[in-house]
Amino acid sequence: MCQTHQSNVLSVSHAKANFERTTIERRALRPHDILIDIQFSGICHSDIHSAFDEWGGGIFPMVPGHEITGVVAAVGDDVTKFQIGDRVGVGCFVDSCGTCEYCQNGDEQYCTKGVVQTYNSRDYDGEPTYGGYSQKIVVTERFVVSIPDQLPLDAASPLLCAGITTYSPLKHWKAGPGKKVAIVGMGGLGHVAIQFASALGAEVTVLSRSLNKKEEALSFGAKDYFATSDPDTFQTLAGQYDLILNTVSANINVDAYLSLLRVDGTLVNVGAPPKPDQFHVFSLISGRRSIAGSLVGGIQETQEMLDFAAAHNIAPQIEVINANQVDEAYERVLKSDVRYRFVIDISTL
Amino acid sequence: MCQTHQSNVLSVSHAKANFERTTIERRALRPHDILIDIQFSGICHSDIHSAFDEWGGGIFPMVPGHEITGVVAAVGDDVTKFQIGDRVGVGCFVDSCGTCEYCQNGDEQYCTKGVVQTYNSRDYDGEPTYGGYSQKIVVTERFVVSIPDQLPLDAASPLLCAGITTYSPLKHWKAGPGKKVAIVGMGGLGHVAIQFASALGAEVTVLSRSLNKKEEALSFGAKDYFATSDPDTFQTLAGQYDLILNTVSANINVDAYLSLLRVDGTLVNVGAPPKPDQFHVFSLISGRRSIAGSLVGGIQETQEMLDFAAAHNIAPQIEVINANQVDEAYERVLKSDVRYRFVIDISTL
Repeated sequence: MCQTHQSNVLSVSHAKANFERTTIERRALRPHDILIDIQFSGICHSDIHSAFDEWGGGIFPMVPGHEITGVVAAVGDDVTKFQIGDRVGVGCFVDSCGTCEYCQNGDEQYCTKGVVQTYNSRDYDGEPTYGGYSQKIVVTERFVVSIPDQLPLDAASPLLCAGITTYSPLKHWKAGPGKKVAIVGMGGLGHVAIQFASALGAEVTVLSRSLNKKEEALSFGAKDYFATSDPDTFQTLAGQYDLILNTVSANINVDAYLSLLRVDGTLVNVGAPPKPDQFHVFSLISGRRSIAGSLVGGIQETQEMLDFAAAHNIAPQIEVINANQVDEAYERVLKSDVRYRFVIDISTL
Repeated sequence: MCQTHQSNVLSVSHAKANFERTTIERRALRPHDILIDIQFSGICHSDIHSAFDEWGGGIFPMVPGHEITGVVAAVGDDVTKFQIGDRVGVGCFVDSCGTCEYCQNGDEQYCTKGVVQTYNSRDYDGEPTYGGYSQKIVVTERFVVSIPDQLPLDAASPLLCAGITTYSPLKHWKAGPGKKVAIVGMGGLGHVAIQFASALGAEVTVLSRSLNKKEEALSFGAKDYFATSDPDTFQTLAGQYDLILNTVSANINVDAYLSLLRVDGTLVNVGAPPKPDQFHVFSLISGRRSIAGSLVGGIQETQEMLDFAAAHNIAPQIEVINANQVDEAYERVLKSDVRYRFVIDISTL
C-alpha cells in the first residue's frame, strides 16, 4: 500500500502547447483511496479552456480530463464502497471538506472550503491534481461512483460531466410531466439534456442556431426544434416555457430568451461566457421570471443520474479516438465538428 | 345609476408639466362597479416616471395615483362584496381578463391579455384611465380591497403599491423563520419591506448607501444595517443571505449583490432601471443563485397583505400633504427627501 503508482499520461507543458506523452506518479493509497485503471476519458469543452489557460491560473504541466470511467485496480484498507474489478467513474471533483452544510446536504460542488477539482487544482495538501487523460488515478472512495452494468464504459464517460451538469438543473427546476422545457444548444451537453428532459416526462423543444441537427434532436426525444437564427422563432415561442436550459457558453441575448418563458419560468445557464451578459430587469419583473445558474451536481445525485440513464437507455453519442488524436479533437471541438462528444480510449496511451 | 360622476382631479397636461386642478367625469356605474370617495392617495416614484413620460407612451392629460384609500359612496346593482360606507382601497390595476390561467390563479398582474392599469392606461373599451389624485373613482368590485379597521386610511394608502410590491416577493420566495433577508434601499418600498420581512419571522439586514437611516431601520425590525458605500460591506456579508430584495430602481452592481447570497439564494428586483444591468453567469453558477423580478401582487394577495399589516401593526411612515404641494413633493422624492412616503389628503382638492 505504500508504493506510488506510475501512470502514462497526456499532458500539456504550458498554455496551448500540444499534448505529449509523459508519466506521473499517483499517490500511494490512503485507507479510503481507490486506484482506478482508467479505460475512457471524455473531452469536455472546459478541458480546452483549461489547457489554453483561458480562465487564468492554470497549473502546468496539466493533465486534463474529468469524465473518467474505468475499473477498480486496488483499494485502501478501509474502503467499503468498492471492490477490485468494479466498474466505476470519476467526475469533476475528487475531494471536498465533507463537513460544511452544503457537503452534508449532498451539494459538494458548492463546498464552502472549495472542492478539489479533478485536474488543474490543488488537493488539501497542496499537491496539484491531474485528470483523466491518464492510465491510472487515485481517488478517495467518497468521490467515486458506480457505473451500472447496462452502460458501456465509453459512452458512460461523458455522463460524469455533461450528464450531471444537465440532469441536476433539470431535476432541481422540476422538469417533468406537464412542463415545457427548451434546451438551448445541441452539443455535448445539449444532446444529453434532451434525453434526460424527455425521459423525465417534460415536453422538450430544442433551440439551436440552424436546423441541421433537427432529425437527431427528435430521435433523442425532442418534440420540437427551432432555429434561433430565424427571428420568427422568438415571436412564435413567446411565453411558452417553464424552463430553459442554456448549454451554450457564449453570450446570449438574455432578454430574448426570457421572453420565451411563462410566468414564474426560469432560464438556467450551465456554461459561463467570460464576458458579462446584459438584461433588462423589466424582462424579469413582467413575468416573475428568473435567471439562474447551476454547477455540475453532487456525488449522490451523480449516482442517481447514472442509475436513471441506465434505466432509461440514455447514452451520450460519442466518437472514440486514440491518444494521438487529442490535439486534432480539440480543433474539431472548437469548430463544433463533433457529434457529440470525443472520448479517448485510454488503452492507446 | 345612469349618471356619470364629476370629480375634481390633479392632472398634468403634458410630460413634466406642473399639476393643475381640473375636473373629469367618472363613468356611470355598471352592475359590478363601485363609486369610491377617495380620501388619500400616495405618491409613488412611478407616478413621477409616468408624469414625466420617462417610460414613453404617456397618455395626457394624466391623473396619476395608484395608492388609493377611501370610502364606498355608491354600488352597482350586482355588487355583493361591498356596501356604502365601507373603507376600501385600490392599487395598481383596475381590470384584467379574469379568464386566463394567471387571472384564475390570482396573479392578475400577469394577465395574458394585459391588466388595465389604474392610470396612464386604457380600459378594455379603449377609454383612458385616471388615477387617485382625484375626489372619486369608479372601479369594478373585483379590483377593490377592504381596508381593515385597525389601519388608518392615510397610512394604509402606500400599502396598495409599496406594500404589496414588497410583501408578494417576500412571501413567494419564502421569507420567514430561519431565513436571512437583505433589503436593498430604504425608501418608500424598503421601509415597508423591512417591517413585512421582520413580521414574517426572517432575520433582516438593511443595505443602504449611508448609515443615515440606521436607527429607524432597527426600529422597523431590522437586525443589522450596512452601508453599501463601504466596500468592506461586501466582504463582510459574503455568502450570507437566502434572499435579497432590491427596492432600488437604479442600476446596481449585480455581481456584487449576488456574492452576498448563499447557495440557492435569490436576488429579487422590484424596480426596473431603464438601462440594462450586467452580470457574469459565473456569479450564478458558483452557487446555483438566481436573479428574479416581481411585479406588485394579485388582488387576493393584496387583501392578505392588508390583513397581515393590520394584525402585525405594520404601517408606512408617511408625510401627509395637501393638493397644492404635489409638485414640490415630486421634487423632494427625486432628492430622496422624504421619510418615507408622501400621501395627498384628497379633502384639500
